[in-house]
Amino acid sequence: MKSKVEVSKATVDRLPLYFRMLRQIQNEGIEIISSEELGRRIGVTPEQIRKDLASFGEFGKKGVGYYVQELMRNINEILGLHRNWNIAIVGVGHLGWALANYRSFNSIGFTVAALFDNDPAKIGQYVNGIEVLDIDCVEETVKERDLHIGVITVPSRMAQLAVDRLVAAGVKGIWNFAPVLIKVPEDVWLVSEDLSVGLSSLSYYLSRSAKE
Amino acid sequence: MKSKVEVSKATVDRLPLYFRMLRQIQNEGIEIISSEELGRRIGVTPEQIRKDLASFGEFGKKGVGYYVQELMRNINEILGLHRNWNIAIVGVGHLGWALANYRSFNSIGFTVAALFDNDPAKIGQYVNGIEVLDIDCVEETVKERDLHIGVITVPSRMAQLAVDRLVAAGVKGIWNFAPVLIKVPEDVWLVSEDLSVGLSSLSYYLSRSAKE
Repeated sequence: MKSKVEVSKATVDRLPLYFRMLRQIQNEGIEIISSEELGRRIGVTPEQIRKDLASFGEFGKKGVGYYVQELMRNINEILGLHRNWNIAIVGVGHLGWALANYRSFNSIGFTVAALFDNDPAKIGQYVNGIEVLDIDCVEETVKERDLHIGVITVPSRMAQLAVDRLVAAGVKGIWNFAPVLIKVPEDVWLVSEDLSVGLSSLSYYLSRSAKE
Repeated sequence: MKSKVEVSKATVDRLPLYFRMLRQIQNEGIEIISSEELGRRIGVTPEQIRKDLASFGEFGKKGVGYYVQELMRNINEILGLHRNWNIAIVGVGHLGWALANYRSFNSIGFTVAALFDNDPAKIGQYVNGIEVLDIDCVEETVKERDLHIGVITVPSRMAQLAVDRLVAAGVKGIWNFAPVLIKVPEDVWLVSEDLSVGLSSLSYYLSRSAKE
């Protein structure tokens, strides 16, 4: 990762898992939770939880635990989820369509604010109440709608081009679903989803089980 | 994770990333690669790569590097990707539809072999050449088609029920996309995808950049 960030990517990736579990714990009416219990529920060690959180400040009370609501608010702020982020989805195929309809985004502070495609049959259609725009409108739309994050759901061969256009228009965050290596300038953040990772790890564990 | 597996989940999750990068390196005509160069390209330290691979045996030659093709074959076997896995997708909404059409699965050894839904309007339809079956047929279909992995793309409130039915039918691997906590018996492997993790880490990095 880039040198200006001292906190490891693994730590940053665990915070949303903590947050999600805390929300569930809150729904159960629990107000204080120990790192042991939180760790047990998530499947990480309590040491890891304490170390991750210590990167951002002092949370929890020794011998007592974490105040659930307070810790949720803190994690939310650390992740920048207390503000709203506008998302543009580029490529309204099956996956783009699915993401445009993914309800959980709203609940964590993301708004799907624009859809782009280059297919004349799709341009002008509405998905989840949002009009699909011509990719040629990307430059003006990024400014008009204050788009922060571009989601890449185009075919692999078009992914880098889509990223380049978003970046040229001023988008600083790219969430890539195309299974290819994407290049971005130093001041742009890239997160790539790789759906084959989850399946491959299942394959690994199933292979091991089968041998026994 | 379960105690019978000594290798960490993080290591298992990195192997597909190594594999994907090695394939790209191979496409560039490179036959031998150092852990330094491989690490630089993926964004992990060479020490991490050497440590991860050492969990599974001795690979590479000191002072020379890794033979690309050989290492690819080894990782493929470690992950169990040299054999075929049959996937069932439960819930043919937008996401299920997208995954049923995801071409990269085939190239890494996974075959979408069954689709299930409980919506009479979807049952009998064909997606990517595969008929959508009534979820009530899950028991017999798991056996007939030798289904190994169940993909959960139903709404959250129906996810646990879908998992329970797959598990009762003998499926030992669950790949869950519903944003809820799923419970499985000890002998079943569960991998949950959480789409909010990628977005949340983008939010984290964008918040940091904005402050500077």
